[in-house]
Amino acid sequence: MSDFQRAIDILTQGDRHRVWSLVVTVFGDLAREEGDEISAQTLGKLTEPLGVKSEALRVALHRLRKEGWLESRRTGRSSSYFLTKFGQSQTKSATPRIYCQTLPETSDWRLLLSPGSSASTISALASLEATGDIVRLGNSSFFGKYRSNEIPDDVFAAWVEKSEVPDWVKTAVVTQEICNSYAKLAQSFKSVSDCLGTTTDAIERAALRTLIVHSWRRTLLRHMDIPASFYPSDCQAHECKDLFLGLLEKLPRPMLEEISGG
Amino acid sequence: MSDFQRAIDILTQGDRHRVWSLVVTVFGDLAREEGDEISAQTLGKLTEPLGVKSEALRVALHRLRKEGWLESRRTGRSSSYFLTKFGQSQTKSATPRIYCQTLPETSDWRLLLSPGSSASTISALASLEATGDIVRLGNSSFFGKYRSNEIPDDVFAAWVEKSEVPDWVKTAVVTQEICNSYAKLAQSFKSVSDCLGTTTDAIERAALRTLIVHSWRRTLLRHMDIPASFYPSDCQAHECKDLFLGLLEKLPRPMLEEISGG
Repeated sequence: MSDFQRAIDILTQGDRHRVWSLVVTVFGDLAREEGDEISAQTLGKLTEPLGVKSEALRVALHRLRKEGWLESRRTGRSSSYFLTKFGQSQTKSATPRIYCQTLPETSDWRLLLSPGSSASTISALASLEATGDIVRLGNSSFFGKYRSNEIPDDVFAAWVEKSEVPDWVKTAVVTQEICNSYAKLAQSFKSVSDCLGTTTDAIERAALRTLIVHSWRRTLLRHMDIPASFYPSDCQAHECKDLFLGLLEKLPRPMLEEISGG
Repeated sequence: MSDFQRAIDILTQGDRHRVWSLVVTVFGDLAREEGDEISAQTLGKLTEPLGVKSEALRVALHRLRKEGWLESRRTGRSSSYFLTKFGQSQTKSATPRIYCQTLPETSDWRLLLSPGSSASTISALASLEATGDIVRLGNSSFFGKYRSNEIPDDVFAAWVEKSEVPDWVKTAVVTQEICNSYAKLAQSFKSVSDCLGTTTDAIERAALRTLIVHSWRRTLLRHMDIPASFYPSDCQAHECKDLFLGLLEKLPRPMLEEISGG
């Protein structure tokens, strides 16, 4: 078994990745700029080693076009796909976080308390909870970044200093289940890093990157974007991040020209 | 009816003051320093116009001695009473607040959230609630000054800026009932101020002061000591405070020698 196949096996082990979500990762990693496009054929070559059947890829591409993420254009006897404006903006809003380019500011974190009697206020906060913008701590208490125009006036919003966040609040944000996911991912990333030789094939590099970014993104985006000090102390998120960045360094992003040939 | 009697009537209207509590006010206002003492006879002259029967006074003095607030010593055929060390310290801790000599600091106010599952933490906070040090806002949420050595470690304590306190929280601290009490008191203080001539009799002045301080103290100490901005906007606490200070100015504290004669 090749190093490449072994790495793929480690990263797909036990997980069933949604094809349309994998394709979003491909575009987010390789073709997120205006003018970038990838042919159907190249998409097939990238996703085939990840266990994606060509019929499943076709269905996913159809769905992504229908939902406004991708557009396509005919190129000779084939088609090329590229992100729509909407797809670009969705991708770009997640990109800094996924690639660890920004640290969230710590100044605007709040403990939010709704008057227990106000159903409409609790419901407004529950909506923000549903989108993952804040986390519920109790019947009428929440924790998150302050968004003055989304938080009703009658919410008691008290400032949070990082040193003050107790463990049970940290675990409400990054749950034990998410920490388990980070631990498993750190293990996978370590194994991949160990077995990884010098992969010079651009398609293999792109395919591996896709799987690595996808695995990272799936765990990372399950919780709010928080400062380092808000993670539970035994959570391997930071270790995982370092391993992730190390892998991306070993597998530099190929130029679109490198993978589009053939 | 004399101005004095009219003022007394206004201030006692509808209220039944506890005698032992009135006596504490007398000592707190007139004889709180080391070496100060008041004879049983003078106490009788001070409290008699307030409707206190001599038998009720005797019972109250007995109780205050038993509870360690007062001591007495024989002086010829009579007795003199003075505050114990305990009585002095109790009195002095309330004095600055009653006479509006300090403004509470605003820097250390916190919204406190207990983990919903920790009965022991909620119980520790409920004890602080019972002593009036913090106020309950919800099942597991409280508001008050931060006392690091009394607040369990697992409490999420977030900073409160004064501008952020919503009305429902203000009303949880100074309830509508307390605001009504301030409104009624402000009305009484205004009426007393209007009918008050130049009372030169030291006993009358002392008796009136006692009633005024007592009425003020009874409403004021029903809620936490809070910065001006934490009061509900329609609460007359500040108006009441100004009237209170104005009355004390009109009725300067008599020297003990002035009232102990006779």
